[in-house]
Amino acid sequence: MSDENKALEIKALQLALEARDADALSEVAEKLHPADIALLYEDLNEEEREFLSSSLGTKTFSDVIPELPDTLIEETLERFTTAEQSDILDRTSDDDRADMLQDVSDEARQRYLSLLEPDDEEVTRSLMRYGEETAGGRMTTQIGRVHIDMNVKQAIEELRSIQEDTKTLSRIFVVNDQGTLMGKVRLRDLAFNKWDTMITDIMEEEAHTVLATADQEEASQMMSKYDMLLLPVVNEQNHLLGVITFDDAMEILEEESTEDIEKMSGISGEQSEESYLNTATMLQFKRRSPWLISLAMLALVSGYVLTNFEALLQALPILFLFQPMVVAAGGNTGGQAATMVVRAISLGEIGKNSKRAVLAKETMLGLLLGLALGLTMYAFCIIILPMLPMFGPSEFNGIGYHELGFAVAIAIIVQLTTATTAGALLPIAARAIKLDPAIVASPCIAALVDISGMLIYFSTAKALLGL
Amino acid sequence: MSDENKALEIKALQLALEARDADALSEVAEKLHPADIALLYEDLNEEEREFLSSSLGTKTFSDVIPELPDTLIEETLERFTTAEQSDILDRTSDDDRADMLQDVSDEARQRYLSLLEPDDEEVTRSLMRYGEETAGGRMTTQIGRVHIDMNVKQAIEELRSIQEDTKTLSRIFVVNDQGTLMGKVRLRDLAFNKWDTMITDIMEEEAHTVLATADQEEASQMMSKYDMLLLPVVNEQNHLLGVITFDDAMEILEEESTEDIEKMSGISGEQSEESYLNTATMLQFKRRSPWLISLAMLALVSGYVLTNFEALLQALPILFLFQPMVVAAGGNTGGQAATMVVRAISLGEIGKNSKRAVLAKETMLGLLLGLALGLTMYAFCIIILPMLPMFGPSEFNGIGYHELGFAVAIAIIVQLTTATTAGALLPIAARAIKLDPAIVASPCIAALVDISGMLIYFSTAKALLGL
Repeated sequence: MSDENKALEIKALQLALEARDADALSEVAEKLHPADIALLYEDLNEEEREFLSSSLGTKTFSDVIPELPDTLIEETLERFTTAEQSDILDRTSDDDRADMLQDVSDEARQRYLSLLEPDDEEVTRSLMRYGEETAGGRMTTQIGRVHIDMNVKQAIEELRSIQEDTKTLSRIFVVNDQGTLMGKVRLRDLAFNKWDTMITDIMEEEAHTVLATADQEEASQMMSKYDMLLLPVVNEQNHLLGVITFDDAMEILEEESTEDIEKMSGISGEQSEESYLNTATMLQFKRRSPWLISLAMLALVSGYVLTNFEALLQALPILFLFQPMVVAAGGNTGGQAATMVVRAISLGEIGKNSKRAVLAKETMLGLLLGLALGLTMYAFCIIILPMLPMFGPSEFNGIGYHELGFAVAIAIIVQLTTATTAGALLPIAARAIKLDPAIVASPCIAALVDISGMLIYFSTAKALLGL
Repeated sequence: MSDENKALEIKALQLALEARDADALSEVAEKLHPADIALLYEDLNEEEREFLSSSLGTKTFSDVIPELPDTLIEETLERFTTAEQSDILDRTSDDDRADMLQDVSDEARQRYLSLLEPDDEEVTRSLMRYGEETAGGRMTTQIGRVHIDMNVKQAIEELRSIQEDTKTLSRIFVVNDQGTLMGKVRLRDLAFNKWDTMITDIMEEEAHTVLATADQEEASQMMSKYDMLLLPVVNEQNHLLGVITFDDAMEILEEESTEDIEKMSGISGEQSEESYLNTATMLQFKRRSPWLISLAMLALVSGYVLTNFEALLQALPILFLFQPMVVAAGGNTGGQAATMVVRAISLGEIGKNSKRAVLAKETMLGLLLGLALGLTMYAFCIIILPMLPMFGPSEFNGIGYHELGFAVAIAIIVQLTTATTAGALLPIAARAIKLDPAIVASPCIAALVDISGMLIYFSTAKALLGL
């Protein structure tokens, strides 16, 4: 379906909803992906949500609910009767079901668990034991799994019996009596081989696995690096517990990028799963205000530094002209350095032994950038500044353009070299003491570099201009 | 293989390389993923690269070269003889081959194309016609494709004959005589159905396709949203041209996130495919200096504003204390707003009709954050400031703590409300005039808000304190 067709279908769904036409609604919903219905549902008011859920019923909503933001799961399930809830939970895949139940209240969780078949309940409880952001918490247990002693015919029969409940059969995992992961076969190896071929003859070694307790980010990075469709999740004894599928890996990659970006802008706390416009304003306020107020306190220190150089500024008012620039340029280069280093850490590019190389590289870059900007500003002081009529002799107090340009350039070089080095050092230091590198990036560095920038600028001017 | 085992294998490869032991090298390389070998290769010197490529040969390097950064493709291919180059290009999948040939010099491209079989040459040339960042430029044409009139047996025979050349068979696409995409079947539907079942009886409609000329980001967002393993790429007539695979989608998602993050920090230009530490310092310099110098020029305007309020600062030196804070807080909230909006635009969450809602939301947030910080600073002025011995009566010039606190608080509320609104408005405005929203984010907003912050702060103080 093309994008325009999809837009038309969504429009048709909205019209059917406004007309309260249940039949048209079901017909259009058939053609849409559950993710599209979920997005629409988020934007509806109470009464429209009720009408949509009762018109589309449990079959459609068992696919829609896993696509909804965490905060809407319980209220949506509660629109259905107990029998319907049981049907929805039964239709949901085990990993989605465990995710959903982790997002509802304790009371609801117990109630929903009691609605499950004993087998499903056991699997769900075991998945819920892993943290939501671990490989175990993300895996599905509904996978293709055959015994190492089987031949192709036995394997196909085994898989045929479970195929309805299985998310993907592209890779089929081979286990022994103990459930230890022995290797994998592709479905095509079964489809295109003779029925008496033994699994051991066509199976391949599985080169990559992840522990159930590992961070989900480790799993998604591995899948992205090695182009993996499925990543087997194992315990310490290498028993096969489940797999992480490629679609979960994509979701994790997007979540982690968004989290990094937000932290770099001083937005704290867990990222909301709701889309931006549906996130409550107060929730946004709570995520943004703590850093804002802490950084403001730090900025008062900059102000204090400024008050200490009051006499210098009175003696040489032209120094005002360059002060915001020296400070901001440090914040910018420090922020750039921090961004490059944080992203390289996130992508797993900076090993434990390359810290020194990173620092050397950024110090060199800071020096080069300082030289470039310093020269630019020196040129500004000797060429442009004399042509500007608004700055008269009273601002200069006898200091020449060359002297001023020299002092400004030196201050810039010192400020940019230290700020860039600090921008690289802070994320690395944060990681060493097990803090999140993204947290200490841009805004925090900008605040620190504000302070150092004032000190560097005024001290340099004082010393070089003999004031 | 666990992480520790992999680290051991990589260490073993390094040792074999240092010992110049070709046999050991080949043996260890067998166990490693080409992506790991590529990462190691990047870090080697000229002589080591030569030894590694000659020891591992064309079979291994046909997998390693597509994993290398763009800038290393040609020099690596040139380590091999013409016959070996031909062998490497023959072994590479068509999409990887087209990508590789787009990254080499014109002369080399013509030479490599002439080494290909006529069929491969035609496919490669047709793939290279699409831009590197379009769906067409990313797709593979080596897909499972069956005719709509076939039955299961015929389909399996068709696929058996092409399976060696096909990246994935998880989804098999059904076409008619004209090559129009009619639907899809899963390999499991072939494997588990009777041989005389007609394809038309088991095929499903393909709900999502992408035009070959569409941006790669559109394709990856669709695949992520709808959990798609393969996305069919079609032309305007809905003829099936190829597919984008899940691993390409993951790569695109990572590239686009990195690009966004870098742009938000004022790092311009195309992102390098080389890992951070291997990117040349001068390349980094070129990407960081343009914004740095432009923003510094803008910061001189802040300095000019400051010089205009020189008399005010002399009359009331305590105003220095709060100036960096008012300015920085505006930069922080403006940056936060820009980040949230840029990310929401990237994730496709902000439609054309929701601009007003975004602005209303951010203006409200700016006001709330302004009230919170304004109150905090008012409290600071009336409670903490009187207790600080370093600020004597000469700094206050007869102004009371309450009056000062009130003026500072009002300035903060005005600054944060306008800065937050500007932070949301700028990316939306940039998109409306077809500029990249990420470019105008944090650093640019910080520079603008610096200027407005000075004006707001000093004008408010002047007016309210009657100076």
